[in-house]
Amino acid sequence: MTTEHEPDLSRPAFPDPADRDTLIALAEAAADLAGRIIRPYFRARLDIDDKSDASPVTIADRNAEQAMRAYLAEHCPEYGVLGEEFGLDRPAAPRRWVLDPIDGTRAFITGRPVFGTLIGLLEGDRPLLGLIDQPITGERWIGIAGEATRFRGSFGGVPGTRACAALAQAELSCTSPEMFRPQDKPRFDALAAAARRVSWGGDCYAYGLLALGQIDVIAEATLKPWDWAALVPVIEGAGGRMTDWAGAPLRLDGDGCALAVGDAALLDQAVAALAA
Amino acid sequence: MTTEHEPDLSRPAFPDPADRDTLIALAEAAADLAGRIIRPYFRARLDIDDKSDASPVTIADRNAEQAMRAYLAEHCPEYGVLGEEFGLDRPAAPRRWVLDPIDGTRAFITGRPVFGTLIGLLEGDRPLLGLIDQPITGERWIGIAGEATRFRGSFGGVPGTRACAALAQAELSCTSPEMFRPQDKPRFDALAAAARRVSWGGDCYAYGLLALGQIDVIAEATLKPWDWAALVPVIEGAGGRMTDWAGAPLRLDGDGCALAVGDAALLDQAVAALAA
Repeated sequence: MTTEHEPDLSRPAFPDPADRDTLIALAEAAADLAGRIIRPYFRARLDIDDKSDASPVTIADRNAEQAMRAYLAEHCPEYGVLGEEFGLDRPAAPRRWVLDPIDGTRAFITGRPVFGTLIGLLEGDRPLLGLIDQPITGERWIGIAGEATRFRGSFGGVPGTRACAALAQAELSCTSPEMFRPQDKPRFDALAAAARRVSWGGDCYAYGLLALGQIDVIAEATLKPWDWAALVPVIEGAGGRMTDWAGAPLRLDGDGCALAVGDAALLDQAVAALAA
Repeated sequence: MTTEHEPDLSRPAFPDPADRDTLIALAEAAADLAGRIIRPYFRARLDIDDKSDASPVTIADRNAEQAMRAYLAEHCPEYGVLGEEFGLDRPAAPRRWVLDPIDGTRAFITGRPVFGTLIGLLEGDRPLLGLIDQPITGERWIGIAGEATRFRGSFGGVPGTRACAALAQAELSCTSPEMFRPQDKPRFDALAAAARRVSWGGDCYAYGLLALGQIDVIAEATLKPWDWAALVPVIEGAGGRMTDWAGAPLRLDGDGCALAVGDAALLDQAVAALAA
């Protein structure tokens, strides 16, 4: 089985390095802003309503997204912004920031420091830049199309996926067995049966760990563009691949099924297992 | 439905406060020792074999347990020690330290900072003292029978379970759907269907979060004494209850099914759901 669709890497993402550095600085500043807003709500002792207007997670999510939108609109007015809570601004812009202030709502709600703030930059469907920030642990991953992934944090870890040529040896991860649609679950179960072991939980943080060579495969479903846009450059810049379940590049109009592998040799094996 | 077996709280756990303080200091020193041994292996870039002699998790687990055993044998020679890796020392001793250097092997292997070092003290089946330590985040919970649970850490959180009188409003957590025996899974599924929501992953760290009022119910299976001995005083000292799936105190010869609730009003509801 071969992977038919490869990302178009012929166009450089950032012909001008100064442009790239400016965009990284913007993304970092936006993540800093979001973190300052989110931190006071973490482990706050209030009643937690799922998505009611009064819940800490909703307040933190909305306030952080508004702050990032305002910052990016002021400092990068020619780019669009797509976010989970407030939709799409400037839809005609060819480049678009894609924001998820709190990826991992359940982790946040239950006090686990493994949710994340996601900031991606898309040109059409192509992810150019991605940032994963964990505002409680202080860990941050930055992926740039065509460049090596960067990582900062005090818990250890070095960017770079690990070698794992056989799916039977692979550490598989997934946020929750409840995330699958009925048609996805048997396909995931077939992948899990072919992998060495499954660990649960983690949301975007698990993709960060894959980029540090701690996890070999992640398969998830029902992802929205703001769930995956930031992850692709982090994974690919660490030596991995991130695609849909058929091995094709993720698209805005795709089915929300995402597959990440640390060792590119695992891609076809994982796609085959998911097709079984 | 009523809970038939209540823990015997008529005997004070530590008639002499000086005795209690000495034991807490011993447990804290043992956890410090374990943390120093474990930290260098976290996110180490080596091949990870499940339980082979050469894997980082096995080396860290064994070395940490040996160090704690040696320390406790020297400073507390009249007590027994039961640990996952090296069995039972001094079996005739009425009190017994119960050690799990790395509870949450999968979390450790995948680089998630939500595993923990567990140090419990049992008198027969009765947990007198329990310590949960997360050596990467620096969070530590200390539970003492009959006293308020203590917590230290820089990520926020205050000891004390939260009010949640109805199972339908409860945040349920569990480490992994793979931990259940075939006869346990439908019972857990019935509980999950009656709860508000399920989040996955966490091992002992989730019990710590329940003691901080972030999670309402945890139900797990196939636990060994070193998995639960340290958790009971942390949960109960925070206002919760920890029992088997019938609502009875956990026992060394029990079936390994454990249930923790933050609000005592949830205990009978959870037991009823698990019995369905």
